[in-house]
Amino acid sequence: MSRFLSSRLKNLEPYTPGEQPQIKNLIKLNTNESPFPPSAKAIQLAADEAKDLQLYPDPECRKLTQMLADKLGVDFDEVLVTNGSDEILNFAFMAFCDEEREAVFPDITYGFYKVFAQLNGVAYREIPLDENLEINLDDYKGLKSTVFIANPNAPTGIYIGICEIEKLVSENPDSLFVIDEAYVDFGNQSAVPLIKKYDNILVTQTFSKSRSMAGARLGFGVGSKKLIQDLNTIKYSTNPYNINKMTMAAGIGALLDEDYTSGNCKKICEAREYTLENLREMGFEATDSKANFIFAKHPKISGERIYSGLRERSILVRHFGGARILEYNRITIGTKEQMDKFLTAVREIIKEEEK
Amino acid sequence: MSRFLSSRLKNLEPYTPGEQPQIKNLIKLNTNESPFPPSAKAIQLAADEAKDLQLYPDPECRKLTQMLADKLGVDFDEVLVTNGSDEILNFAFMAFCDEEREAVFPDITYGFYKVFAQLNGVAYREIPLDENLEINLDDYKGLKSTVFIANPNAPTGIYIGICEIEKLVSENPDSLFVIDEAYVDFGNQSAVPLIKKYDNILVTQTFSKSRSMAGARLGFGVGSKKLIQDLNTIKYSTNPYNINKMTMAAGIGALLDEDYTSGNCKKICEAREYTLENLREMGFEATDSKANFIFAKHPKISGERIYSGLRERSILVRHFGGARILEYNRITIGTKEQMDKFLTAVREIIKEEEK
Repeated sequence: MSRFLSSRLKNLEPYTPGEQPQIKNLIKLNTNESPFPPSAKAIQLAADEAKDLQLYPDPECRKLTQMLADKLGVDFDEVLVTNGSDEILNFAFMAFCDEEREAVFPDITYGFYKVFAQLNGVAYREIPLDENLEINLDDYKGLKSTVFIANPNAPTGIYIGICEIEKLVSENPDSLFVIDEAYVDFGNQSAVPLIKKYDNILVTQTFSKSRSMAGARLGFGVGSKKLIQDLNTIKYSTNPYNINKMTMAAGIGALLDEDYTSGNCKKICEAREYTLENLREMGFEATDSKANFIFAKHPKISGERIYSGLRERSILVRHFGGARILEYNRITIGTKEQMDKFLTAVREIIKEEEK
Repeated sequence: MSRFLSSRLKNLEPYTPGEQPQIKNLIKLNTNESPFPPSAKAIQLAADEAKDLQLYPDPECRKLTQMLADKLGVDFDEVLVTNGSDEILNFAFMAFCDEEREAVFPDITYGFYKVFAQLNGVAYREIPLDENLEINLDDYKGLKSTVFIANPNAPTGIYIGICEIEKLVSENPDSLFVIDEAYVDFGNQSAVPLIKKYDNILVTQTFSKSRSMAGARLGFGVGSKKLIQDLNTIKYSTNPYNINKMTMAAGIGALLDEDYTSGNCKKICEAREYTLENLREMGFEATDSKANFIFAKHPKISGERIYSGLRERSILVRHFGGARILEYNRITIGTKEQMDKFLTAVREIIKEEEK
């Protein structure tokens, strides 16, 4: 720590991203990436744009934003694209939380919410998931807060139906609800249409998972024109050119090829159900994940042991600290072939433990 | 403005980026971009990376950072790469300014400093340039502040010699000096070597100008290990994957091709001197710019008139508000051919005015 660091940041604990190791032949199931390459159109348009990098990007991202708006059935000025969905989430903490309006989110959810709150110096409150690791929406009623709900939630993958979300939003107009839909594309319904009816909901999504673009950094938020205007004020006060030209082009390419995306999502959902079934047959308990990962524990083998047994076999999954989820691992869904290798490895680990 | 916007942001005035218009055959001399395409190696490596976007980027940007460190003659952990130099500047405001340590910068400089200060809610003070639009370094002595100095300054282009910078830094150890070297590559010496001797200097640079990569968003900061560690704390608390894979690859390509960069810089410096000479022959007064732009006014024709006369001829330059510089225009240096067209247009405007 330098002698110049502001005292308000001295206790800040940064987010720890999942490992990006350089191990050969690694099966990487630890950061919820897609096992499929990006759309050929995304690759082509991004590569074309690389020739023309001497000019600044369009700060308004007009073409990409309009295409997204059309796809989502909303207006141009109800969408803001950002440098990953982390950026729009951080903007939301900056814009809509302060000493008068605290941030509220589950105790077990995307670990970055707490960091954003700390970074921006806003009060925050974590509400425990219930004994089934589910969000009890009643806990979020009657507040005057900004509520962050990942739906499906991470790392549990549990999804809350859109009718329940609408009930919460409509009955609690004094709270703003930020619905983080990073994993919505794996068989779930989005809350985006609600932004036309309610001014107290912001929906965020990403191109990282379903569109195989984690390496390009592209996310977005959808909300009322006024919410998006506020978020634009933040954008133009931090980094007006937040989206580079190649990423913008790749995003346009991906949107031109939505059949490819939905085909990949279907394969991932199938591999998820297949993996869940096999794990449950081995005695694992798993949440009912609707995301591109599963969250599972074995009644007799520790989470740490499964994590390290897999790692010894060059399979990387994510193991979190925290008492309530210490016995779990979060396993990203890869291809069927990768999941078969994973299942074989898990069977070996169980056999070793039974000796 | 939504009803949820934090009261601390209600008076925030965002930065206004220079126009990115879609006018055909436009000669674009308004946002200090390079007239040359990026290095062929940058284009190639970025295009290759587009095929592999499904994985997250390396959050540590190890390869690029090590190459930069080697080029600059510093250590790996004395460099942080960011999403444009705007990001590292914002990080510096976040990390090193607060109610106890105000931000200090010239009244006429990069317009974003004031926005960063406002956004982060830190006190700031603007110190007027002298009557020649020069920074008087004596004004920055004896403070206990974080001082932001663009060197060369924008929009004047005036450069302060490295010995003077060193004297300021060494004699004022209680202040942190952030030297914003966005335009250093156009014939000037960098302050980077000073970071080995002093813990109170952070130097920022960008790939946007000299390396023709404005569209890719890549900047960096160089400072003591402790300063960089603090800035990394901010990075890992906002957006650990701040640099996308294609931009990282393009940066590596550009560094493999530094002869191309220095050749382009030489051409731009020659075109700058050529343009300055011609403008002065027409009666213009111009600052002694050492950047890839010039800053000039005519004793008889208003800055606004020259701006709009050029625009009518599809030549875009940048005209700023603000009483002290209202008669000036900032003209990015393009190719010699572009500057000849610009000079022809200026001669026509003068002729019209003399009628």
